[in-house]
Amino acid sequence: MKIVVLKFGGTSVGTIEKIKKVAQIISNYKKKKYKVIVISSAMSGVTNELIKKSIEISNNFSNSEHDVLVSSGEQIACSLIAGRLIHNGFKARSWLSWQVPIVTVGSYMNSRINLINKNKILKYLKDGGIPIITGFQGINNENRITTIGRGGSDASAIMFAKFFKAEKCIIYTDVEGVYTTDPNKLKSAKKIKVISYEEMLEMASLGAKVMQPVSIQDARLNRIDIEVKSSFVKKSGTLITQRSNIVNNKIVTGISSTQNDSKVSLIGVKDKPGVAAAIFKPLSKNSINVDMVVQNISANGKDTDLTFTIKTEDLNKTQKIFQKNKIIKYKKLIFEKGVSKISIIGVGMITTPGVTFRMFQALAKKNINIKVISTSEIKISVLIDKKNTKKALIALHKEFKLDNKK
Amino acid sequence: MKIVVLKFGGTSVGTIEKIKKVAQIISNYKKKKYKVIVISSAMSGVTNELIKKSIEISNNFSNSEHDVLVSSGEQIACSLIAGRLIHNGFKARSWLSWQVPIVTVGSYMNSRINLINKNKILKYLKDGGIPIITGFQGINNENRITTIGRGGSDASAIMFAKFFKAEKCIIYTDVEGVYTTDPNKLKSAKKIKVISYEEMLEMASLGAKVMQPVSIQDARLNRIDIEVKSSFVKKSGTLITQRSNIVNNKIVTGISSTQNDSKVSLIGVKDKPGVAAAIFKPLSKNSINVDMVVQNISANGKDTDLTFTIKTEDLNKTQKIFQKNKIIKYKKLIFEKGVSKISIIGVGMITTPGVTFRMFQALAKKNINIKVISTSEIKISVLIDKKNTKKALIALHKEFKLDNKK
Repeated sequence: MKIVVLKFGGTSVGTIEKIKKVAQIISNYKKKKYKVIVISSAMSGVTNELIKKSIEISNNFSNSEHDVLVSSGEQIACSLIAGRLIHNGFKARSWLSWQVPIVTVGSYMNSRINLINKNKILKYLKDGGIPIITGFQGINNENRITTIGRGGSDASAIMFAKFFKAEKCIIYTDVEGVYTTDPNKLKSAKKIKVISYEEMLEMASLGAKVMQPVSIQDARLNRIDIEVKSSFVKKSGTLITQRSNIVNNKIVTGISSTQNDSKVSLIGVKDKPGVAAAIFKPLSKNSINVDMVVQNISANGKDTDLTFTIKTEDLNKTQKIFQKNKIIKYKKLIFEKGVSKISIIGVGMITTPGVTFRMFQALAKKNINIKVISTSEIKISVLIDKKNTKKALIALHKEFKLDNKK
Repeated sequence: MKIVVLKFGGTSVGTIEKIKKVAQIISNYKKKKYKVIVISSAMSGVTNELIKKSIEISNNFSNSEHDVLVSSGEQIACSLIAGRLIHNGFKARSWLSWQVPIVTVGSYMNSRINLINKNKILKYLKDGGIPIITGFQGINNENRITTIGRGGSDASAIMFAKFFKAEKCIIYTDVEGVYTTDPNKLKSAKKIKVISYEEMLEMASLGAKVMQPVSIQDARLNRIDIEVKSSFVKKSGTLITQRSNIVNNKIVTGISSTQNDSKVSLIGVKDKPGVAAAIFKPLSKNSINVDMVVQNISANGKDTDLTFTIKTEDLNKTQKIFQKNKIIKYKKLIFEKGVSKISIIGVGMITTPGVTFRMFQALAKKNINIKVISTSEIKISVLIDKKNTKKALIALHKEFKLDNKK
């Protein structure tokens, strides 16, 4: 059986007209003799509207009832899609998570799919039906509705692709694919045709926002090819696949940037085990997300400097934490607002010498000062002044030949 | 176990503030040591909004998907009620029809409850929980969601009261109870404290609209006491119970009236078997509701006169049917617009002589001409000119001492 999983995000099913278009897309795959499994999110806006109601009911609304409440959103979308396919003459029906069933583990609002019972869906596929399945949810061992904490409907789609050994999992969304850099920030940004899971993970965690990292990770572990594309335009999207499937590796696949970061440097921290943990524990406790962390070797063997970045909105909170904390010892504490992190990402870097040099030179040529550097196997990140972000993006995009033109 | 079933209609849970009030009502019963089973409708407007979407998707939207779609409305309401009760410190949770499960038979959009699995709910009640159960729905033997055709959430509540042998079933709605006549038509209308199922059935079918006849019939068959009351004001409502439970039977319990009726009379119809059926068959086929039917004995043994009423909006359609039809033979056909049916209802009539006379005399005194008369065991109906409706209501309300004053 040639199975394809199609997942539609909230904006793709956001209006009746869009749902009709989605039904069209589904039927095109059906006509190509695919067995089609459809996963849908709630119509955009619906989930937020429901959550708003729950907050009005209680500022501490029950997690289990939250899941009952919001799961109705996917139920509505799936019945409408199925209704449209039936209208068009296809055999289709909605499958709610308890009807499949999709079994989850973990707590309410933060479950993950553990098992998908294949029998009923497999029989339905063999009978020529198109199952329209509620994403983002499942049931737990108490027979109660749960929602998936991370990855949402994307995670549902990946799991269906895994359990049904689908040829491909197509994520329909409101963007045309993954771009070399954010097209809102740089006009010459280009759609990437194919990208490895690892690069996509780096892109996603840096703010590409097309898919949640946890779903990409699931796809990577299960070697599921994902195509991210728009449900609004008829264009091929971006294929996310294994490195070995990518023939013409570019050196750099994409560039990402953050905004509104702040840099915190602790100068002269005691260089002994447990110090870093002692610094990050109170931040974690206060839900402050620490991004880039850099610690250099100790020059004198006694103390060292530690730098990390946070969102600027967390800066006040962070300052207060360090003021109160008497356990962490350091000589000097420096806070700096208005920094930006620029990262170049590409599996090709590993085998290509001089990428770091080319990056630094391109920035130097534009008189952009590099404050902090951090590298991984497939990524080089630098901190620069926020005001230089655009200039840096343009320079690097050109340096690594990512520009749309030519 | 002292069990009470509380049913809340769409207007009772129409806003967040109203849901908070509903949670208060529920907790009051809980504090009185009742085991409380709650049945809720969807928030008012939600179901219509969903149906509107389905019509936009298809002018022939699938019945099974319709049920999946609209059942989400009760799911939302139940989770919000449960969430509020939990917020207030009670043990509560939503129970969706498939979780109970509530098993229905019949077709989609028109099912009826066949069985309620008591085990889980009974255990939950014993553990001190308040189950908030989705009304208007169930699952069929294919494990798919169905909705209840007639009676809606009222029917669900009555069935729960039956299966759990509840002491009482309270129907919370937006009216304070059942009135001696429509308070919108007659200011002196009075709330009825207690009414028999049979009287309520006559009231309901005549337009009292408080509860659907099918639910009252279910309650009658299972001898379940129903109280109809408002969720907005703290006042006792109307108790609907067995005749034998009503000690001080009034002669007349209530008066109902219709508007916008038309009278159709066939003069000189052949008085032989099958004639009436031949007349009503084409009407039924065209979905024309025939209300009052009166046929007098044949004066000459050969032909007779037959009169029936229809809604005036169906008059044109009816005229066309009779014009086309060549099978039904009659001497004369008379259509009359602008008639009104006034009915007095009361189980006390059976044992009280002279009720008919008192009714006719009261109307005669006001110079109101009676066109047609029809009586049943507990009801007398007359057809009069529409323009006399209000005058007749006032006269009869006074004659049978139903007035609010004194």
